[in-house]
Amino acid sequence: MNKRGVLTVISGPSGVGKGTIINRLFEIEKNLYFSVSATTRNPRPGEIDGVHYSFKSREEFEHDIETGEMLEHAVFNGNYYGTPKSAVEEKLSAGKDVVLDIEIQGARNVKRLMPEAVLVYILPPSIDELKKRLVGRNTEDAETIKGRLSTAYRELHEAPELYDYFIVNDMVENAAIKIKDIIEGERCSGNAMQEVLKQILEEAENLA
Amino acid sequence: MNKRGVLTVISGPSGVGKGTIINRLFEIEKNLYFSVSATTRNPRPGEIDGVHYSFKSREEFEHDIETGEMLEHAVFNGNYYGTPKSAVEEKLSAGKDVVLDIEIQGARNVKRLMPEAVLVYILPPSIDELKKRLVGRNTEDAETIKGRLSTAYRELHEAPELYDYFIVNDMVENAAIKIKDIIEGERCSGNAMQEVLKQILEEAENLA
Repeated sequence: MNKRGVLTVISGPSGVGKGTIINRLFEIEKNLYFSVSATTRNPRPGEIDGVHYSFKSREEFEHDIETGEMLEHAVFNGNYYGTPKSAVEEKLSAGKDVVLDIEIQGARNVKRLMPEAVLVYILPPSIDELKKRLVGRNTEDAETIKGRLSTAYRELHEAPELYDYFIVNDMVENAAIKIKDIIEGERCSGNAMQEVLKQILEEAENLA
Repeated sequence: MNKRGVLTVISGPSGVGKGTIINRLFEIEKNLYFSVSATTRNPRPGEIDGVHYSFKSREEFEHDIETGEMLEHAVFNGNYYGTPKSAVEEKLSAGKDVVLDIEIQGARNVKRLMPEAVLVYILPPSIDELKKRLVGRNTEDAETIKGRLSTAYRELHEAPELYDYFIVNDMVENAAIKIKDIIEGERCSGNAMQEVLKQILEEAENLA
């Protein structure tokens, strides 16, 4: 049965804890393929090329945009972020479920190019909590934090129209399980099941 | 938080094992409200009024249709089957998830009246298997079985356009878990989460 995989896009404001949730999701659901984003920003301490990001030079990245190898891309703080297309398409065709960790502009592009994509947005328990987490992270200066918060407010207004599912990150474990449930459910959607439906209809045709 | 419950409609051809799956679903997911259908057919041995069905006289049922108390109703083999509206609406408003076990015509009506309803269709592993199960049940004569099979073929053609999710009943336990996952996922849908979204947007407004 050539069942196509489910493509899930996960987004959320900076500081919401998306990375931790996604790490946990991949621990509890082994049959997921994580699409590693490409970026031109510098690696943070501990980040490994090809694991956390595929780190590229500006020249390499722009070449990939021109050749259509980027499923989506966006610029944040002067750096490119994007999703290499070929790897995603290959996995979906083989029936493997793919998860993308991308920002809202990228999610919009993916939905336009692949309307069957399932878009999940992670919400903070409260705006106060989001502020606290951004400040507590201690990796950016005050100006950067202010910029991230204002981006978060803008995103929160755009998200309800675009995304299919919304998860409040009050507990990492619960949030990860909810994403797992959403993907399990979407494996039964009319789109994912179309080959199965076609087969059983043919069978009914022959026996009617 | 006044979160509205998820309304899930479960249908499937006669003999597919829907009843067994739904029984298992209610064992593994205690927080579901099962809407008991009303019917004018005679109780089968062991069936309890108000548990398996709400058994009504033809006069009572037609009165409920006239007063708008039936969310949907249909006629099968000369008997009325329907869903009393007030109980369903009351539970959804209280944030409780409701499951309806109804046939395809009824599902179409519910979707028309409540577009947020989640429609799940149970498929047999194969048409041969469906035939075997109908014959093996030994509760109907050959003519009734033939009628049920021809209804099943017609339904299988209509289902793909109407239903949101499709589950193959190869194993009762797996099928029940899939429905559970679908409901869990739908609790995070934009529709179910609209009050949560509204609240966090207001908070962002006030702090921006």
